[in-house]
Amino acid sequence: MKKLVIIRHGESVWNQENRFTGWQDVGLSEKGIAEAKKGGKALFKEHLQFDVAYTSLLKRAIKTLDYVLEELDQVWLPVYKDWRLNERHYGNLQGLNKTEMAEQHGEEQVKIWRRSYDVPPPEMSMDDPRHPKNDPRYRHVPLRDLPSSESLKDTVARFIPLWNDKIVTDLKMDRKVLIVAHGNSLRALMMNLENLSSDEIMQVNMPTGIPLSYELDDQLKIINKKFLGDPEDVAKAIQAVANQGKKH
Amino acid sequence: MKKLVIIRHGESVWNQENRFTGWQDVGLSEKGIAEAKKGGKALFKEHLQFDVAYTSLLKRAIKTLDYVLEELDQVWLPVYKDWRLNERHYGNLQGLNKTEMAEQHGEEQVKIWRRSYDVPPPEMSMDDPRHPKNDPRYRHVPLRDLPSSESLKDTVARFIPLWNDKIVTDLKMDRKVLIVAHGNSLRALMMNLENLSSDEIMQVNMPTGIPLSYELDDQLKIINKKFLGDPEDVAKAIQAVANQGKKH
Repeated sequence: MKKLVIIRHGESVWNQENRFTGWQDVGLSEKGIAEAKKGGKALFKEHLQFDVAYTSLLKRAIKTLDYVLEELDQVWLPVYKDWRLNERHYGNLQGLNKTEMAEQHGEEQVKIWRRSYDVPPPEMSMDDPRHPKNDPRYRHVPLRDLPSSESLKDTVARFIPLWNDKIVTDLKMDRKVLIVAHGNSLRALMMNLENLSSDEIMQVNMPTGIPLSYELDDQLKIINKKFLGDPEDVAKAIQAVANQGKKH
Repeated sequence: MKKLVIIRHGESVWNQENRFTGWQDVGLSEKGIAEAKKGGKALFKEHLQFDVAYTSLLKRAIKTLDYVLEELDQVWLPVYKDWRLNERHYGNLQGLNKTEMAEQHGEEQVKIWRRSYDVPPPEMSMDDPRHPKNDPRYRHVPLRDLPSSESLKDTVARFIPLWNDKIVTDLKMDRKVLIVAHGNSLRALMMNLENLSSDEIMQVNMPTGIPLSYELDDQLKIINKKFLGDPEDVAKAIQAVANQGKKH
């Protein structure tokens, strides 16, 4: 039985402030740290021994993984950090408040930017010091691959090579894989793994810090899929994510 | 100018209790965490941007590296964890108190186990649950490579492949390398890098948590070598390590 567990990073400081984050490298909030530890404890209870872990190049995911591995007492696991697991790049919206944007541009426009499959938000300028080409962590990534803004479709496209070349290989070799990433890079993963349409994936909202565990057969078809942890927490968290898009 | 910085992990709970630690996976003490953070701050002041980091499979080194990268704001660096950077395996002495051992076996015998170059301590039994062959983190290491006890000479020998195959390659590619490891695996490194004899290396005592920075030429000859941080701290730490072997 093949095993894959995915976790969305705990709440970040900007999630808390309701700002578009994308590739902006903000840290976990206190609540986010607590979520990460809770996720780790849920995994520990399952006596799961992983072989390899993946995460993004953004600290809210890396630190979530660190806390999870600490709780699991598996800090010695090999960890691969890859930009292809980064959150969707939100272009020029990064740093802006979601509610304010809804007031200025209308809820409908913000919903399109947030929830449409293939409409990217306005681009970030290459001269912007926040542009990935000006960040040393991306210097090994070819310039043509670095986004200035991404639709979910773009995020799915840049995630695929990591999935096909590395993660699928690990799973086929019977390595137990743990992935800590972001709302939209995990959507990219689930779209592939669960064979979802672009309409279907938009309805999927991963809760933060709650491990989602897959058991897979030799063809990587899903045999079993379940959230790990307190069932009430799980139900509450899914509901909370579904409410995020609404103007209040 | 090529750059290599090495750091010995901060004080562990067993350093504090004066016990032989070796491959036993004990965590950092509060003092050790503070040392790690201080080391990270010293690096941050130098505005050092690394390309790659290495550490062992033992949490006192891994966690020290985590704290250092946190202070540097470079948690996104690729990190390779390798058993070849583990502390010297202390065989059956692991877990025993150094002062008690000196009272039982005489200071001279303990000094030979601790400070001789090629005399390994008594072996740990393969049936011992603590033996590396019974620990999942070493399951990818061929059984013939796994130690039951090591002299410093043995530690040097198993460190060499990592040095030649990976670290030297990184340095030749002008990658700035950060290594967080243990007293004896760092001796193995310094012996190679500084071309020291087995007598000379025994006199070398790395202080905990104080980064040692090397600048190297194209042939990896040392151009400059210095400890980073408060000079008083540096002098005090070196003295403290030199006193560790003495019975009191």
